[in-house]
Amino acid sequence: MTRSHDRVLRERAAAVIPGGMYGHQAVGLLPDDYPQFFSRAEGAHIWDADGKRYLDLMCAYGPNLFGYGQPEIDAAYVRQLGLGDTLTGPTELMVRLAEEMTLLVSHADWAMFCKNGTDATTMALMTARAHTRRKTIVRAKGAYHGAAPWCTPRPAGTTDTDRAHQIFCDYNDVASLEAAVAQAGDDLAAIFAAPFKHDAFIDQAAPDPAYARRCRELADQTGALLIVDDVRAGLRMARDCSWSVVGVEPDLSTWGKCIANGHPISALLGSEKARKGAASIYVTGSFWYQAAPMAAALETLRLVRTTDYLERLSAMGERLSAGLTERAAAAGFGLRCTGPGQMPLYLFDDDPDLRKGFFFVSQMLQRGVYLHPWHNMFLCAAMTEADIDAVLNAAEDSLAALKREAGGLAPVAKLAFLAGGQR
Amino acid sequence: MTRSHDRVLRERAAAVIPGGMYGHQAVGLLPDDYPQFFSRAEGAHIWDADGKRYLDLMCAYGPNLFGYGQPEIDAAYVRQLGLGDTLTGPTELMVRLAEEMTLLVSHADWAMFCKNGTDATTMALMTARAHTRRKTIVRAKGAYHGAAPWCTPRPAGTTDTDRAHQIFCDYNDVASLEAAVAQAGDDLAAIFAAPFKHDAFIDQAAPDPAYARRCRELADQTGALLIVDDVRAGLRMARDCSWSVVGVEPDLSTWGKCIANGHPISALLGSEKARKGAASIYVTGSFWYQAAPMAAALETLRLVRTTDYLERLSAMGERLSAGLTERAAAAGFGLRCTGPGQMPLYLFDDDPDLRKGFFFVSQMLQRGVYLHPWHNMFLCAAMTEADIDAVLNAAEDSLAALKREAGGLAPVAKLAFLAGGQR
Repeated sequence: MTRSHDRVLRERAAAVIPGGMYGHQAVGLLPDDYPQFFSRAEGAHIWDADGKRYLDLMCAYGPNLFGYGQPEIDAAYVRQLGLGDTLTGPTELMVRLAEEMTLLVSHADWAMFCKNGTDATTMALMTARAHTRRKTIVRAKGAYHGAAPWCTPRPAGTTDTDRAHQIFCDYNDVASLEAAVAQAGDDLAAIFAAPFKHDAFIDQAAPDPAYARRCRELADQTGALLIVDDVRAGLRMARDCSWSVVGVEPDLSTWGKCIANGHPISALLGSEKARKGAASIYVTGSFWYQAAPMAAALETLRLVRTTDYLERLSAMGERLSAGLTERAAAAGFGLRCTGPGQMPLYLFDDDPDLRKGFFFVSQMLQRGVYLHPWHNMFLCAAMTEADIDAVLNAAEDSLAALKREAGGLAPVAKLAFLAGGQR
Repeated sequence: MTRSHDRVLRERAAAVIPGGMYGHQAVGLLPDDYPQFFSRAEGAHIWDADGKRYLDLMCAYGPNLFGYGQPEIDAAYVRQLGLGDTLTGPTELMVRLAEEMTLLVSHADWAMFCKNGTDATTMALMTARAHTRRKTIVRAKGAYHGAAPWCTPRPAGTTDTDRAHQIFCDYNDVASLEAAVAQAGDDLAAIFAAPFKHDAFIDQAAPDPAYARRCRELADQTGALLIVDDVRAGLRMARDCSWSVVGVEPDLSTWGKCIANGHPISALLGSEKARKGAASIYVTGSFWYQAAPMAAALETLRLVRTTDYLERLSAMGERLSAGLTERAAAAGFGLRCTGPGQMPLYLFDDDPDLRKGFFFVSQMLQRGVYLHPWHNMFLCAAMTEADIDAVLNAAEDSLAALKREAGGLAPVAKLAFLAGGQR
C-alpha cells in the first residue's frame, strides 16, 4: 500500500521537529484523516500535500480575509518588496498605516506595529502596567490571549512568577467581574477582554452589552486600562474595534491575523490616555518595521473601506449556520451553531467527547470541505453563495452518514480529557 | 526654508506613533542629522526618504546578509507566495528547512520556527525550564536577548516577577560565571550565552575559549542546558553555530535576522537531549508556518553552503577595521575597531559621551556612508572591495574634519547617561 505524501512528510517531520509539529497548526487533536501538510491555496480553497482540494473554513485560523493570494494585496506586497522591505529604518508606509488604522478604529489615536498577535497583547499588558504603575490584570477564564509565558494555555516551561498578578473572572458574568476587580484592590492595571467568547471546545457567546459597559466603568473607576483583544476577530465583526457593536470603546486594542490578509503584521492601537505609557516601554523585533506587509495592510484596509465584504461575510455566515442547524434537525441531531456566522463553531448536542463532531467533520473532509471540530472557524470574502450551497449539500450527505453510524461510534481517545472537564 | 521629507514624516509619526518611533530603529540616540525614514534599498545601499543614497553598514541591524533585494532569494519568496504562504497548515518547506538547518548546525537535531528573535530566546528559556523542571537562568550582564518582559533592556511596563529567577555574571569571566552557577544551587535551568560580547556602547570581545568551555562543563555538571543566542551573529561567524569557532556545542541555539536574508523567520535549534522539553511547551503564532519565508530561507542557506560569502565578509571586514585604525592613527586619534571585522564596532579613545564618534559618523553620513556610533554594525556579501575603499576614503576626509573640530565639540546631551555609567 502506498503511503500518502502527508504520511511521508509526517515521518520526516517527526525526526526534525519536536513532537512532529507544534502550536495551533499541529493536527494532534484533529481526526486522524486530517492532513498535516498543505501544498497550495487560492481564494477560498486549499490543497493538501497529496493534491486534494478543500473549501477551507479555517482560513489559516483567521489571516485569510479576502481570499488566499488576493491579487491586489499580493501585488502591493511584491511591489514594495522590489523597493525595499526589511531596512535599517522604517519607510513612509509605517506612518501611513498608523494614520489609516487610527482613522478606521474609533478609540485609537496611535498605533504600534509588531509581528505576532502575542506581541500585541504583551505590549498591551506592558503599556497598562507602565501607565498605571500597577501590576494586576483581570481576564476571563479560558480566553486565549497568546502563547507567551504569561498567557500560554499550557504551563509547561513557565514559572509561577511568569503568570503572577492575574485574576480570572467568568466572561459575561458581571458579578464575577466585579469580584475580580475588587480582589485586585488598588493594584488593577488592566481588564483584558475578548470581543466575544471564542474559547475552544465550548459554545461561543456574544458579549453581553451590560458586561462590556461594566468593564468600561470599572476601568474608569479604578484608573485601569480596558484592553480588547481583537487579534482573532478584528475586521470580521466591524470596520472598527469589535466592541463598537456593543457601544464600548477600550483604551487599547490588539490586532493581527487578517490585517494584511495573511502577510505578517500585528498591531497595538491605543487612545491618547495610554500614549505616554506606550512610549515608555522598550519593545522591538527584527522584522517589525518591514515595509512589504505594511503595503499589504494598506491595500487590505482599502478593501475593508470600499467593499461590502463585511455584510457579505455576515450574510453568508448566517445562512450557513441556519442551513446547518436545519439540516441537522431534519436528520435528528441537535447542532449548535454559535458565534457570529462569519466566525462560527458547530457542536453537536449530547457529544461530550466530540465523537459525533469528529465523524461529521471527517465526512465533510471526504467531501472537500475543511471544518474544525472544536475551534471557531472563519469565512472569507472569496467565498461565494455557491460555496455555501456546497457546504450545505455536503452536510446533508455527511449528516445522513452520521445518522447511519451514530450508534456505533467509538470514543475519541485523544479528546478523553474533555470528559474530565479539564484541559 | 523647505523642510526635508524626513522631517515631515517625523511630524506625522509623532501624531500617530507613541514617541514618534519605538524600538531599535528609533533614531533618538543617533546624531540629529540621521534620517528616521528610508525609501528603498538595493544590494549594499539604502536611500533615505529624501532620496539620498548611503552605503549601509547596518544592513537592517543584521537581516541583510546577501544584499537587499537579492534576486534569487526574493524570487523564491515571490514564487512561493504565488502558491501559498499563510495557510491552514504548514507546507513541505517547513520539513525541508528543519532538515537543512539541522544538517548545517552541528549540535542541532531538531528545529522550531517562529518570527521574532525574541520568540526563539523565549522558547529556549521555556524549553530549558521544561527540560530541567527548574527555574533559574544565568546570563551575562549587558547582553541583549530580546525585548520580552523577561529580558527587555528597559524595565518600564515589566514587573519584578517577570524578571525573576535570573542571575547575572560578567561575560568571559570564569570566576563570576562559577559564582553565578553556585548561587543558582540546584535550580539552574540554563546558561544563556551570546556568541561573543556584542553589547552596545562598549568594546566588543571575542569569546574566551576557556569561558565557553566552562559554560559547557557547568551545564553538564548541573544538568542545565547551554543556550547560545545566535540571533544577531548567526551565519556571519560560521556556517554553523557561532561557538563552533571555539569548539563548544550548546544544547540549544537561537537564530533569526538573516536566516532568510530579511524575510521574517527565526528559529530555535536543539539537540536530542532537549527534544522532549521542546515538545512539551505550547508556543505558536499566526504567521509562524508561513511558507514564503521558508522558501527564502532555503535559498539563503543554499547561498551559505555554495558561495564564499563568509570568507569574503571576513576579509573585507578585517581590511576595513585595519584601514580605519591606521587612518585614525595617522590623524592622531585612537580608534578601537572591536569585534569580528564583519560585525564591527568603532569607538574613539577618550570619548566618554561619544562626541567624537557622533561628529565622525555624521561626517561619514554626509559622504554617503551609514555607520552606527555605538551599536555593532554588519557587512553584507553585496559589498565590494570598491565599497570598502569608498568607506576608507570617506573616513580619511571625515577624520581630517574631526581633527579640525575636535577641540570645540559640544557634549552629546542625549548620551549624557553614558558619563554616569548607566543605562
